[in-house]
Amino acid sequence: MELFFLGTGSGVPSKERNVSSLVLRMLEDRGTTWVFDCGEGTQHQILNTPIRPRRIEMIFITHLHGDHIYGLPGLLSSRSFQGGETPVTVFGPRGLKEYIDISLKLSGTHLRYPLHIEEVDEGILFEDDNCSVEAVKLEHGLESFGYILKEKDQIGELQPDKLQALGIQPGPIYQKIKSQLETKLEDGRVIQRDDVIGPPKKGRKIAILGDTRYIPELKHHVREADILVHEATFASEETEMAHDYYHSTVQQAATLAKEAQVKQLVLNHISSRYQGDAIEKLEAEAKEIFKNTVIAYDFYRHSIPRNN
Amino acid sequence: MELFFLGTGSGVPSKERNVSSLVLRMLEDRGTTWVFDCGEGTQHQILNTPIRPRRIEMIFITHLHGDHIYGLPGLLSSRSFQGGETPVTVFGPRGLKEYIDISLKLSGTHLRYPLHIEEVDEGILFEDDNCSVEAVKLEHGLESFGYILKEKDQIGELQPDKLQALGIQPGPIYQKIKSQLETKLEDGRVIQRDDVIGPPKKGRKIAILGDTRYIPELKHHVREADILVHEATFASEETEMAHDYYHSTVQQAATLAKEAQVKQLVLNHISSRYQGDAIEKLEAEAKEIFKNTVIAYDFYRHSIPRNN
Ligand SMILES: [Zn+2]
Ligand SMILES: [Zn+2]
Repeated sequence: MELFFLGTGSGVPSKERNVSSLVLRMLEDRGTTWVFDCGEGTQHQILNTPIRPRRIEMIFITHLHGDHIYGLPGLLSSRSFQGGETPVTVFGPRGLKEYIDISLKLSGTHLRYPLHIEEVDEGILFEDDNCSVEAVKLEHGLESFGYILKEKDQIGELQPDKLQALGIQPGPIYQKIKSQLETKLEDGRVIQRDDVIGPPKKGRKIAILGDTRYIPELKHHVREADILVHEATFASEETEMAHDYYHSTVQQAATLAKEAQVKQLVLNHISSRYQGDAIEKLEAEAKEIFKNTVIAYDFYRHSIPRNN
Repeated sequence: MELFFLGTGSGVPSKERNVSSLVLRMLEDRGTTWVFDCGEGTQHQILNTPIRPRRIEMIFITHLHGDHIYGLPGLLSSRSFQGGETPVTVFGPRGLKEYIDISLKLSGTHLRYPLHIEEVDEGILFEDDNCSVEAVKLEHGLESFGYILKEKDQIGELQPDKLQALGIQPGPIYQKIKSQLETKLEDGRVIQRDDVIGPPKKGRKIAILGDTRYIPELKHHVREADILVHEATFASEETEMAHDYYHSTVQQAATLAKEAQVKQLVLNHISSRYQGDAIEKLEAEAKEIFKNTVIAYDFYRHSIPRNN
């Protein structure tokens, strides 16, 4: 898995940072790509990456502010124009369906793939064999959500040395042994999978939050996440301003990461008032509280390896 | 006056050409800027130009296809965010108001300047001391318009040599003589303005058309325009395809320019199927019919001097 940041700015696009969007590439895991938020120009950013819109399976919108949604009609249309045929589901707050439907209808756009729009509330949005996604409510003046992806644990790897110690040579039998609890061999022996398999591979947990004030209780939701993506619109000393504008400071984001004992914090939604040295200062402020912090920039990629 | 092309592609953005938008800068003439069409990423293109969104006075939308409007909510919002305070009027086909209103409402956007949205029909859209704008119907499957700006003629320049021959020295009296038909001097003489002024400055005519099939009758509307901006989505041999998709070929656009005896033709809305040498070929095809043709590219600027 890999996070690919397409837009890490706040409010309006600047030469340095586009408005919000990031992509979670799960090509090895699901063969698909998920998009989180879709500010204007997201499809333009994608032109400069290896991301293929036809691979998009789901789009999660944290909230309906323009800098998070104005690129959605264009991305959906262009995906059709470019031959995308597989279904896409878009999750987001109430109002999302009207926005997409009206934009596509008035522009005379007919998508060549099925589009599902699901307006969400708190709780599990969906679950399949591979993972589940939960929405958690944030505090941003208008409805805003964080999305928490939990990958299912997977059974461990077959241990070839153990198999060969039992005199079982590589072949289709290996896949069979892995696929069931016990397997009867041709010679009559019964092999317990647990005896020849390594420890289970723990599923990853990825928390991607939308714009929000600092909410200490969020730590329960993002606890021990492999990666937490959190907005950091303001520097640490701007606590009051952050509160007034329903945003967070760098310090608050780092505090949440620390309290929740996440493994990695990535900060985004950086105001254009911070440039150059000021960005380094923001990073230093965060690292004082939570060491494993990076401040994202446009086209920043962060891979999320398995835990073991 | 200057035309500044921001997006000259068709349908979807490519690395070479953004989707449709062009700006008419009239800083010396009106102190303002007009925008024609506003595809996604128009505000991003503007970041790389000297164009100031707060100078925008009017926006003309030729038709509601996504590649001509998806940048509108973002441009309007950012103009507010960046401190734009003067009113903006947006002209365009039926449905435009719903599109803008819904996009701004659902995204919680409150503009800090007055926004007027006028859904247009054929005919004069407005007229003031400086110019008039007429909308003409095109043929594009859905409602599409061309906009024709006619600048008013202005009285000529005062001729200092003639004034000085009459013994009138430079000073505030010059402005007075220019501002009225006749002026009585302190010495009792009466000066006729016509005797001391040069020929009237002829107003310019600028025709900017939206996507359209070839319509020979348009020549009456664009006759003798100083500049005609016309789409050229297809090469000359693709007449049938152009007809089927409600677009024009290069040859058709050049034919209209010739028939209407315009001074300059600028082609835009170029399909991404044409690159490099193919573009030169398109230009050659056009020039065979109408010599004063250029094919626009993103950030191409074309100044439109007065006629005399
Ligand atoms: Zn927001
Ligand atoms: Zn069109």
